[in-house]
Amino acid sequence: MKNILIIGCGLLGSSLLRKISKKKLCKKVFIYEKSKKNILKIKKLRLPGILVKKLEDAVSKSELIILCTPMSEYKKIILRINKYITSKHIITDVGSSKLNSLKIIKKNLKNKTEWIPSHPITGSEVSGPENGKVDLFDNKWCVLIKEKKTNLKHLKYLNLFWKKIGSKTVIMNSKKHDEIFSITSHLPHLVAYNLVKSAQDFEKIQKYNLLKYSAGGLRDFSRIAASNEIMWRDIFFDNKKNILKAINLFIKNLEVFKKDINSKNSKSILRKLSQTKKVRSKIIRLKLDINKPNFGRDI
Amino acid sequence: MKNILIIGCGLLGSSLLRKISKKKLCKKVFIYEKSKKNILKIKKLRLPGILVKKLEDAVSKSELIILCTPMSEYKKIILRINKYITSKHIITDVGSSKLNSLKIIKKNLKNKTEWIPSHPITGSEVSGPENGKVDLFDNKWCVLIKEKKTNLKHLKYLNLFWKKIGSKTVIMNSKKHDEIFSITSHLPHLVAYNLVKSAQDFEKIQKYNLLKYSAGGLRDFSRIAASNEIMWRDIFFDNKKNILKAINLFIKNLEVFKKDINSKNSKSILRKLSQTKKVRSKIIRLKLDINKPNFGRDI
Repeated sequence: MKNILIIGCGLLGSSLLRKISKKKLCKKVFIYEKSKKNILKIKKLRLPGILVKKLEDAVSKSELIILCTPMSEYKKIILRINKYITSKHIITDVGSSKLNSLKIIKKNLKNKTEWIPSHPITGSEVSGPENGKVDLFDNKWCVLIKEKKTNLKHLKYLNLFWKKIGSKTVIMNSKKHDEIFSITSHLPHLVAYNLVKSAQDFEKIQKYNLLKYSAGGLRDFSRIAASNEIMWRDIFFDNKKNILKAINLFIKNLEVFKKDINSKNSKSILRKLSQTKKVRSKIIRLKLDINKPNFGRDI
Repeated sequence: MKNILIIGCGLLGSSLLRKISKKKLCKKVFIYEKSKKNILKIKKLRLPGILVKKLEDAVSKSELIILCTPMSEYKKIILRINKYITSKHIITDVGSSKLNSLKIIKKNLKNKTEWIPSHPITGSEVSGPENGKVDLFDNKWCVLIKEKKTNLKHLKYLNLFWKKIGSKTVIMNSKKHDEIFSITSHLPHLVAYNLVKSAQDFEKIQKYNLLKYSAGGLRDFSRIAASNEIMWRDIFFDNKKNILKAINLFIKNLEVFKKDINSKNSKSILRKLSQTKKVRSKIIRLKLDINKPNFGRDI
């Protein structure tokens, strides 16, 4: 591989940068970062790679371009780089929803240039280059998006790239991707934000100091609800259709739960609670979480 | 302290047993356990204490009685021990809701005997004596319930007991307790169960294998939704009134969220997401969670 350009050097961008450099996956890695605060951090951390001021130059010099910015930045970036990209460039991103961002890409990206979206299933509630880690992608799934017209040669190239980064890859279309992640990721985040918001509302009404007693459940949700707000606003807007559907399914189930509690329907409640328990065992079996009670937090 | 009787030797009971023995807090600890499976485990683990077959004998010989069973067992146990308890006994429990269980206690417990409820804010998604830990209560809050008629001498005694166990104690009435924990613990658990249930429903409709992609949020909820189903059914029924209120507040906020997503109200969403983020920092400052991204799970 010749050169790679990473646009946006936060948690994911800087982790990619660390891994690409460590494994010497290409000749040069260029980094473009808009935020002055992050640029200072990158310099202070002495991260590898070449920090470029002019996005345009680095585009011409790179073969693979990876967008690691919030999705709401895509259009602006496309319009800036359009002049400099050719059909030889491979462009990808690491955004968490795909259907709508692909529409923006198709509408704005220069003809004959291909953008194959990626979605590495990893991250954290913390952001910024100082929190990136060289092994962030190790053994994590990375979804690659294949549509009808996707260039298979480019897809193969990108697939190999993510495997070199340490990820396990899986290929699906953007429709399926957005449906799946509306349930496994977007709804859980929304619910966590909504739970913390409800606790805050309750605190205001009751004037109780709640947080002191958050160890019984709330604190775990607070971790998820501490994720980057720009990133999550973009996801909620981008995958709106599926997320609204997911919320409706969630509310429907919540209404059944309410009814069962209200009528003290022990049989129905016990069936529900025992069945959801099985999901945890499956997740542990799939090695998607550590099998330590309490996340091993007490150990 | 003379002798202590622990009724129910699961996660909490066995942890108490371990701590009481380690710190030699009394002459003898009696354990009463109903489940044959757990009795075998207790013997195999060579847990300290005297395993009694007859609850009645141990009651007469003990000064402090601690119920560590599901709350739905309380009535049955009270009716069994009523004959043997005197006004000198101090009875407590470790149940997660108080208002309704106190009603059952008051209705059934022999006159002049006092039951001062405790609620140690600790636990895990795993249960059973094999998962108990000597330090389960260390530096955790334990709520003691004080009502108008509570005997202050007994309360002081119990307060000291929990401090010796390693807990920090706080005293409040059962009404306040149940209101607070409906939001900080009961609603989060219910929401986690409901989220996993919704994911299961979605999987059935769409025939997608979701769990593989659960690392983006769902897996964290699955931990909470793996908690003991009997215990949680009891809590949902016992604290019904407050929990139903909490669900309604939660749904109301969810409807606002839906509206904001639907109308792409960026300002409102960003305000909400930034404000919930602050809660996490407070929880870390209160030392209620470790300050490691991703619960330190990757470290």
